[in-house]
Amino acid sequence: MARRTQPVEELFTAACSGDRAALARLLSLIERGADEARVVGRLSYPLGGRAYTVGLTGAPGAGKSTLTSATIGHLRSQGLEVAVLAIDPSSPFTGGAILGDRVRMQDHATDPGVFIRSMATRGHLGGLSLSTPEAIRLLDAVGREWVLVETVGVGQVEVEIAGKADTTVVVVNPGWGDSVQANKAGLMEIADIFVINKSDRKGTDETRRDLEQMLELSDLAHETWRPPILATIGTTAQGVPELWHAVLEHREFITANGILNQRREFRLREELREIVARRLQQKAREVCGGDRWDALQADVLRRQLDPWGAADEMLASIGA
Amino acid sequence: MARRTQPVEELFTAACSGDRAALARLLSLIERGADEARVVGRLSYPLGGRAYTVGLTGAPGAGKSTLTSATIGHLRSQGLEVAVLAIDPSSPFTGGAILGDRVRMQDHATDPGVFIRSMATRGHLGGLSLSTPEAIRLLDAVGREWVLVETVGVGQVEVEIAGKADTTVVVVNPGWGDSVQANKAGLMEIADIFVINKSDRKGTDETRRDLEQMLELSDLAHETWRPPILATIGTTAQGVPELWHAVLEHREFITANGILNQRREFRLREELREIVARRLQQKAREVCGGDRWDALQADVLRRQLDPWGAADEMLASIGA
Repeated sequence: MARRTQPVEELFTAACSGDRAALARLLSLIERGADEARVVGRLSYPLGGRAYTVGLTGAPGAGKSTLTSATIGHLRSQGLEVAVLAIDPSSPFTGGAILGDRVRMQDHATDPGVFIRSMATRGHLGGLSLSTPEAIRLLDAVGREWVLVETVGVGQVEVEIAGKADTTVVVVNPGWGDSVQANKAGLMEIADIFVINKSDRKGTDETRRDLEQMLELSDLAHETWRPPILATIGTTAQGVPELWHAVLEHREFITANGILNQRREFRLREELREIVARRLQQKAREVCGGDRWDALQADVLRRQLDPWGAADEMLASIGA
Repeated sequence: MARRTQPVEELFTAACSGDRAALARLLSLIERGADEARVVGRLSYPLGGRAYTVGLTGAPGAGKSTLTSATIGHLRSQGLEVAVLAIDPSSPFTGGAILGDRVRMQDHATDPGVFIRSMATRGHLGGLSLSTPEAIRLLDAVGREWVLVETVGVGQVEVEIAGKADTTVVVVNPGWGDSVQANKAGLMEIADIFVINKSDRKGTDETRRDLEQMLELSDLAHETWRPPILATIGTTAQGVPELWHAVLEHREFITANGILNQRREFRLREELREIVARRLQQKAREVCGGDRWDALQADVLRRQLDPWGAADEMLASIGA
């Protein structure tokens, strides 16, 4: 164990001094959920607390990558450094195509003030909801003050991950309705800022009215913050300075009234709960094996015992 | 307890004799995840095993409800009875809109040979992945031999639920690419039959070629079954008899070679695992409270302990 963790500590020290390859390797450990990831977490955690995270989410094709790229350009023009986590919960089969879009972001790949990293699902469901905050804490620990978290898609997982940022930007397009219908409510709940991207297309005004109406109706507790609705054209960076201005305004607002700290504490409590649940799931996988388990399964398959009854018996046998 | 469970047993007896209101009430118990749902499960389980389930999934707007309605019509014309579960993992806010679409299905609402039921997410994430099989077992127990399970959307949850049917139909439209991009791989994995609905629109041939190419490339283990690609027009029921014919062919195929039984056993094992995991999560919620938990959380918030370290300490304290 000591021999295996030693390199992680060396990598961490290197990453803290600006070694990008070391940082990338540490992020791979986190992405894989490797045992060493725990060491990364233990090292990162005491050093963090300064980074500010901005989440971007929206349907595939909404132009998030282009918008993210334009936002990076804007931050760089102001001399700010930035890290980007591009979160991709789709399976490897789609991964290729979506990563292809990210090529746009690679404009910034050789800029030492920019660090871009894709994270895909490795292993079991929901892994990203724990590895993403861990990755953010690492970027925080090594001194990245601005972290953009882009998620692909508008499913439950994506919206959850994006909604864990300090400021969440929801990207839609003119005539957005269909592509996000299944999770409009989820998007409304997490949005601190709405962006109508590709606003040179027809339907921008209608979409703005739609969003305004939904905001009226939704009556969500935005703690007196009303999400602004901005228009951008990612390909020309039009509206991007205004978008960043809105991010800073939101940041100032939630910092001044204490909401930022409340949100961060809340997220951390939630994460703790999730970690406990995850550990118990591991326990469950250990439990769901062996002779006793096989016998109970056989009873269920023969319809002599219903599934919940079998689970009860199994759990009783481990004292849970 | 005895007084509370008595009505469930009465409801179950009534539902078995064809009382639709009783069946609806039992399904509500399952949907809510009420304690009584466990009793429903215990009563249903020994009686089941005859129903055949057909899953339909696809992006919002693909015309699943219309197609389902046309399929109901086709089954009724052959004198078959059918139950439909329309699964809606979106939150209540969107629920209304999507249920609006289902009005089409209400054509069949007064037909005693048809039983239609929407199930939405109540309570925490993932509830539907356990309540759906429970609902199917109840419909099975009361004698419904054909159960159509329609899911709204193409996210992980929807695809998972649809993929748990005996035969899974994936509904796309001409020019389907964008709307399902985030989860194409997931759809390819579960599809036993592809349907290009709204095939009177432009792009049907291209979509068919797309799908064929993806099937070639995907190299998925379909146990020598190659998913047929059919074209339908839900509004006129064109292609629906052919769709149903394909369902029956698939059913015959997987029945004859034993795949049906293997799949069902596999699903049941998976479900058992999920139930065990769920019970452990409940345990986690109980654990995540009390003075010890508060003290650990405070340490984490002060950055004196990292989240995984806190989880370890908490779990150690309950012997897990």
